[in-house]
Amino acid sequence: MQTLRSHVGGRWIEGSGALDTLVNPATEEPLARAGAGGIDRKAALEFARTRGGPALRALTFAERGALLKAVGDALTAHRNELLDLSVTSGGNTRGDAKFDVDGATFTLAAYAEIGKGLGAARVLADGEGITLGRSPRFHGQHIAVPRHGVAVHINAFNFPAWGLFEKAAVALLAGVPVLTKPATSSAILAHRMVEILLAQAVLPEGALSLLVGGVGDLLDHLGPQDVVAFTGSSETGRKIRALPAVIRQSVRVNVEADSLNAAVLGPDAAPGSETWEFFVKDVLRDMTQKAGQKCTAIRRILAPAEVAVRLRDDLVDRLRGVVVGNPAEDAVRMGPVATAAQLLDVREGIGRLASDGRLAVGSAAPLDGRGAPAGKGFFVAPCLVEVERGAIAPTVHSVEVFGPVATLVPYSGTASDATEIVARGQGGLVSSVYSEDSAFTTEVVLGLAPFHGRIFLGSAKIAEQSPGPGTVLPHLVHGGPGRAGGGEELGGLRGLGFYMQRVALEGSKPVIEKIAGMGTP
Amino acid sequence: MQTLRSHVGGRWIEGSGALDTLVNPATEEPLARAGAGGIDRKAALEFARTRGGPALRALTFAERGALLKAVGDALTAHRNELLDLSVTSGGNTRGDAKFDVDGATFTLAAYAEIGKGLGAARVLADGEGITLGRSPRFHGQHIAVPRHGVAVHINAFNFPAWGLFEKAAVALLAGVPVLTKPATSSAILAHRMVEILLAQAVLPEGALSLLVGGVGDLLDHLGPQDVVAFTGSSETGRKIRALPAVIRQSVRVNVEADSLNAAVLGPDAAPGSETWEFFVKDVLRDMTQKAGQKCTAIRRILAPAEVAVRLRDDLVDRLRGVVVGNPAEDAVRMGPVATAAQLLDVREGIGRLASDGRLAVGSAAPLDGRGAPAGKGFFVAPCLVEVERGAIAPTVHSVEVFGPVATLVPYSGTASDATEIVARGQGGLVSSVYSEDSAFTTEVVLGLAPFHGRIFLGSAKIAEQSPGPGTVLPHLVHGGPGRAGGGEELGGLRGLGFYMQRVALEGSKPVIEKIAGMGTP
Repeated sequence: MQTLRSHVGGRWIEGSGALDTLVNPATEEPLARAGAGGIDRKAALEFARTRGGPALRALTFAERGALLKAVGDALTAHRNELLDLSVTSGGNTRGDAKFDVDGATFTLAAYAEIGKGLGAARVLADGEGITLGRSPRFHGQHIAVPRHGVAVHINAFNFPAWGLFEKAAVALLAGVPVLTKPATSSAILAHRMVEILLAQAVLPEGALSLLVGGVGDLLDHLGPQDVVAFTGSSETGRKIRALPAVIRQSVRVNVEADSLNAAVLGPDAAPGSETWEFFVKDVLRDMTQKAGQKCTAIRRILAPAEVAVRLRDDLVDRLRGVVVGNPAEDAVRMGPVATAAQLLDVREGIGRLASDGRLAVGSAAPLDGRGAPAGKGFFVAPCLVEVERGAIAPTVHSVEVFGPVATLVPYSGTASDATEIVARGQGGLVSSVYSEDSAFTTEVVLGLAPFHGRIFLGSAKIAEQSPGPGTVLPHLVHGGPGRAGGGEELGGLRGLGFYMQRVALEGSKPVIEKIAGMGTP
Repeated sequence: MQTLRSHVGGRWIEGSGALDTLVNPATEEPLARAGAGGIDRKAALEFARTRGGPALRALTFAERGALLKAVGDALTAHRNELLDLSVTSGGNTRGDAKFDVDGATFTLAAYAEIGKGLGAARVLADGEGITLGRSPRFHGQHIAVPRHGVAVHINAFNFPAWGLFEKAAVALLAGVPVLTKPATSSAILAHRMVEILLAQAVLPEGALSLLVGGVGDLLDHLGPQDVVAFTGSSETGRKIRALPAVIRQSVRVNVEADSLNAAVLGPDAAPGSETWEFFVKDVLRDMTQKAGQKCTAIRRILAPAEVAVRLRDDLVDRLRGVVVGNPAEDAVRMGPVATAAQLLDVREGIGRLASDGRLAVGSAAPLDGRGAPAGKGFFVAPCLVEVERGAIAPTVHSVEVFGPVATLVPYSGTASDATEIVARGQGGLVSSVYSEDSAFTTEVVLGLAPFHGRIFLGSAKIAEQSPGPGTVLPHLVHGGPGRAGGGEELGGLRGLGFYMQRVALEGSKPVIEKIAGMGTP
């Protein structure tokens, strides 16, 4: 059986001590072992800082963009192998696998284009120049330059491919080396991707390090120029924020955590209408894609009270038709959740939600997956929990069940009622409103905006082109306030800000203009 | 004797329990008492959120800008009274007092203009629209909206006027109510300013609350839409960042803390040249203005080794001529530090720095100020500490002595040596380079940029118009990485981002364009 190694300090290193066993979530068949005991994390950070950093900073944005393109090309050349690995190691259907793997290359391509557009510059001009004195000679200009630290990326188990590269693409384009730590349970895919890149020496030495195994004392060695971007549970996010080294050194931390994303159906969307069907399709996709293991998945479905029963019946009908099982089987539409621990969490979460309402379909009971050995695999049926209109239903707005589970919450049909209910979630990554009534849509958008990082406006007019609210796009920000962690990633150029230092230059105009335009052709 | 009250929940409240006595730092004569015992801080926050927030959000940016103008006008109408109060309560010379009070009204005026420029909008469009699909109909656009929380501002003792309004102007323009907590020792001025505004009902009820006294449990009641902006010591900044409520609720925190700001004299600046004189003038201003109690003051003076002695002699000559004493006296050029505790800290700091080098002028010994009663007042002489070239001199790069104290650090005269030495400070608010050689300036600027929030390019060409590196301008960002706290304030529109939620809208172009342009005429 393969033992996954880490790549730090410019070489592959096998961890010592106890190793975790990684299994196929559909069959529980062991696939690999992994662990990072004994690895010198401090040295790993220092190598990235002192080798990867200068190498990246020596490049222009266009050259870094070309690196990202080369990374994407190298991965694309192994696409089928990576998709297969995603299916066996992540419990993903082939569609889920594409969502993750192609999401990674799509994001790399988007940031490669951004780099190309920035051209031969090494310094990013931030906004326009400002006249500060009586004469235009005394001049101000903000610029952004790469931080001299390392970007530590701690990723979640659900997107080993996209999660790695949506973070790494931005850091590398900014000129900052990356030390990436995939979740151990699904690290096989991330490990293979890094292996492909290293075999071809696509990136400068030290630009991308990989730690497979526990974080250990990694974060205790962070310095004031380093940053940490974390995706995962609120609880771990809080622990990272509270680390003495992080607080003492003003280390920048970005957290993407829990989110009870809501989807609001407008009162104008009649059952069976195009808007209704679009809504149902998006809800179903979010509940079942990746077995609901997307931080952006719809968790709360808000429907006008008078159509809530009809909506429930529509959803129940279609959820009953979802074939759950080993994604290696063609007929299977939804795979297992990623780990035994996740399965326990999901089952327990279903129980908590159900105590606040009624299970309309699905259950927390054990389930044998189609094409999986009896009693094996981390399967759970899609669950829809109905709650009463106006019920306080505390768990609905506070318990994120990270699986194929959503709640159906009837509301009065007014925008103010919908936004008041959604806001009880205390901040989320993305919520959505499906309506053809632009006045209703506008009111909901403005009501939800302070509590979200993204709002999806579902209407029949864009149904054909839309990937739905659950897909994170590189040109739009990803993150959210409050419960969602208070972070922000991506958003095109915006994402670079986290990895760069913005600095105001104040002085004589010709010198400042020359610096702000440095390297531009 | 006056007892300073807090204004929370829409009324003036006197604290119960023990009160602090505030004194004139030049004479130690008691001026007022203050304390905030028994004040319901949770209710104070809730009042600001539920009364001040909606009232501000109902206004357009132009209307909020007009409020800021009215605030500035009301304060300007009391300018002489406020300057007098600044002299007696803050140990400020009249020049220092103007720097603080006029700095406040200047910043208010700048943000009033920004508000005017944003016009009738209530939503801020962030960047351009983005085509997301195959057709332009599927559209993305970022907008920013006011957070629904309260902005808690915890200010430092050195700028009771500017500190209050450089923060409040930005929050109020963003549409977020403010609860401001001045440092108790110099709260008299802030208290009077708020009193003037409340007497004239310049702001909507709940838009500006004042807490005079200890923070108490204030920060334990913060929610996910609230923000905290703190200026003060690193140690307190760390405590705020580590608070359970702050971490649990992803409360946004901005910290402006210690900074060992450096000024680099270029090798081209010959003794006596215009650039040399400009440099000397700026160093002297920063060492003596506000008795060196500016977070942006030059703390480390880097001079080419071959002219370091000459520079020392120039500085020593002029520092010896600085008359220290009661700023109520006309001849006095530098007042006391703000409190007895500060005086102790400064004396102890001088001792630590001197252990790393040699005191060229000044001392940690007690000093009677001109025009102050013998043995009274918190006076200290301006101190210049020389260190050896290349000496490791650890305290020079790590101990910020918050008084009229700087170190003189010889360097080789190369840009790389200068930037390497400055970077030992582990991140600062502002550093500066004085040179007419644009290649040298450029190299220093690029070397310093990752470690600073602002860089001042001193050259003879702008000497006449320049306020020097120690002055924070509203259109440039203020803050810095690492030791400086990792924060960012001001910077024109940039400052609003902290108080607003950026949200990506994704959907049908016409609806999104209408929302992004909302309220715009």
